Amino acid sequence: MPKIKEFQHILQKKRIDFFISTNIDFERFNYDMAYFSGYNGVGALIIPKNKRPFLVVSRMEKERAKKGKIKVYSPRKGMRLFDFIKEKVKLNNIRSRRIAVNKEELTLLLRDYLKKSFRKARLVDLRKELYKIREEKTKEEIGIIKKGCRISDEILERCFREFRKFKTEAEVKAFLEYETKKRGCNLAFPTIVASGKNSSKAHHDTEDTKLKKGFCVIDFGIRYKNYCTDTTRTIYLGKPSKNEIKVYNHLLEVQNKAIKNIKLGKNCAQLFDQTKKDLGKYGRYFTHGLGHGFGIKIHEFPNLTEKSRDDLKENSVFTVEPGVYLKNFGIRIEDDILIRKGKVEVLTKTGKLLKIIDF
Amino acid sequence: MPKIKEFQHILQKKRIDFFISTNIDFERFNYDMAYFSGYNGVGALIIPKNKRPFLVVSRMEKERAKKGKIKVYSPRKGMRLFDFIKEKVKLNNIRSRRIAVNKEELTLLLRDYLKKSFRKARLVDLRKELYKIREEKTKEEIGIIKKGCRISDEILERCFREFRKFKTEAEVKAFLEYETKKRGCNLAFPTIVASGKNSSKAHHDTEDTKLKKGFCVIDFGIRYKNYCTDTTRTIYLGKPSKNEIKVYNHLLEVQNKAIKNIKLGKNCAQLFDQTKKDLGKYGRYFTHGLGHGFGIKIHEFPNLTEKSRDDLKENSVFTVEPGVYLKNFGIRIEDDILIRKGKVEVLTKTGKLLKIIDF
Repeated sequence: MPKIKEFQHILQKKRIDFFISTNIDFERFNYDMAYFSGYNGVGALIIPKNKRPFLVVSRMEKERAKKGKIKVYSPRKGMRLFDFIKEKVKLNNIRSRRIAVNKEELTLLLRDYLKKSFRKARLVDLRKELYKIREEKTKEEIGIIKKGCRISDEILERCFREFRKFKTEAEVKAFLEYETKKRGCNLAFPTIVASGKNSSKAHHDTEDTKLKKGFCVIDFGIRYKNYCTDTTRTIYLGKPSKNEIKVYNHLLEVQNKAIKNIKLGKNCAQLFDQTKKDLGKYGRYFTHGLGHGFGIKIHEFPNLTEKSRDDLKENSVFTVEPGVYLKNFGIRIEDDILIRKGKVEVLTKTGKLLKIIDF
Repeated sequence: MPKIKEFQHILQKKRIDFFISTNIDFERFNYDMAYFSGYNGVGALIIPKNKRPFLVVSRMEKERAKKGKIKVYSPRKGMRLFDFIKEKVKLNNIRSRRIAVNKEELTLLLRDYLKKSFRKARLVDLRKELYKIREEKTKEEIGIIKKGCRISDEILERCFREFRKFKTEAEVKAFLEYETKKRGCNLAFPTIVASGKNSSKAHHDTEDTKLKKGFCVIDFGIRYKNYCTDTTRTIYLGKPSKNEIKVYNHLLEVQNKAIKNIKLGKNCAQLFDQTKKDLGKYGRYFTHGLGHGFGIKIHEFPNLTEKSRDDLKENSVFTVEPGVYLKNFGIRIEDDILIRKGKVEVLTKTGKLLKIIDF
């Protein structure tokens, strides 16, 4: 349970009675709920400003929800989720004048349900506070993320060792995801495998297309104990030209330099600018951000983009992923970075020297 | 593009200027957008009441979005999504007094953005109309769903053939999901593999636990061309007792009977009641609904539950999945059904006679 106390301080300061995170869609991952309670399914998490937080889930989900450290309740048979929440809030003497929510997660339908149960409540959006709290990771979170990166490295290295057996992009993707599931983990996002000319698209939709000669960008991340990892490696199928090797090594140098430039308190837009400059004539083909924080979500603070106002904070984790996308090929190299007082650690260890696969 | 015309008729009848479905979360599948346009990522779909619909996506996503049949636009560099939408709506002479949305999908944050771009607009929730439209499938959709069920059958049968090689629940799950990805498909939901005592939980969270002797419930669905499938089979690891065989065969008989009872126009609550009755003394251990429609979402209309008011409609597809969850074991058998004028078709063909695996 990271930072519930810290979050409750914010609730107190903002004179909020309780925070609620709720989800009724079986197909949706509930980030705020997962962050505070470990449970990510259908139900609701209530964090009162000065009482113990609790979960409300259906009886079918109770077993699953109980794995966290938060008290779990289930509505009686036939009783609706929000009626039960209302009852629980009342029984626990929790006021309901000011209720905090995350506007990026709460749907209009759930807002209606909430308003029906708590007619006089004012809803206050705390998404920025939630995201700011999540930016700095606890020791426990860092441990989980490090372990996730180790698992992801292991899977990627195995994938490269056995790469010659793959015939299509989908097979590479399936292999990576199989190895992920086999280890009891989930995916952080759909794996991208972009070979040949497809590599020149930063967001290629991997399909059942045959692997082609040339650069092959693999962007892969797992979800271990609810926390994401995010790595990109670009390998080469066949024999690269001198120019291709030159561009790759240039990008790698720039990526390594970007990592070296990381310092506590450094401004993220500056880091981006420096990297773009370092790319020289390739700077104009660097069409996305330099990186992003991650954690329970794949995109968290800080933002390492052109217009970012974020400065690098202690105990934050983020990606560094410059890429260049030319007409005939693209290359991206991405690592996960942890920044601590006076120490920058690269969490993803899969080798970055250009891997050349017989093809 | 199923039923855009039909939906536009509804917009006209309700005097709505346009419908918008929008999503800015890379981790979210946008059902309404996927349904009408095939594209399911970040961006917005606009369906005016009497003009051509169009998509707005970032330039990075343009290639992917263009695979559908709907016109795609991208904002100019540095321009925000909603500013661009506003401009496009204006340029196309589309009014914006009454804008339709899906309250179950639209978050408060997106509502704010929308309201900022269209200050005078009134938002009208059309989720019920959207879901009703989606209940009856077009010929094209039925073709896709049938194909999806064939692929899913193939994967399940292969899994059973090779079952002896699995040691943990996670391995079975990983295998099924690997075979899915290898075929260029996605998952409809996280696969459930519940062996031994875990089978008595309807929503078991598959983990790295060793497979155990006894019933093993496998609930598995793929997403093929955006459309779901959903099958459950219960197999037996080891040697079942006479009583276990009896309970299984009883449930299978009841499930087959439930399918036989399906008729156009039939009330779903009645179907549920009849099944519960047919289960006899096991009826009280049948703790969930009899089934649910599916399509672009895994839960659509009709609802085959105790209190459902739905009647079975032509060209709808839904699951029939009675289950009993006793103290020491659970069994569920689930098929996907298509109902047409005078014809009920079982789309999932994986055998249902109790499979006994050496263990």
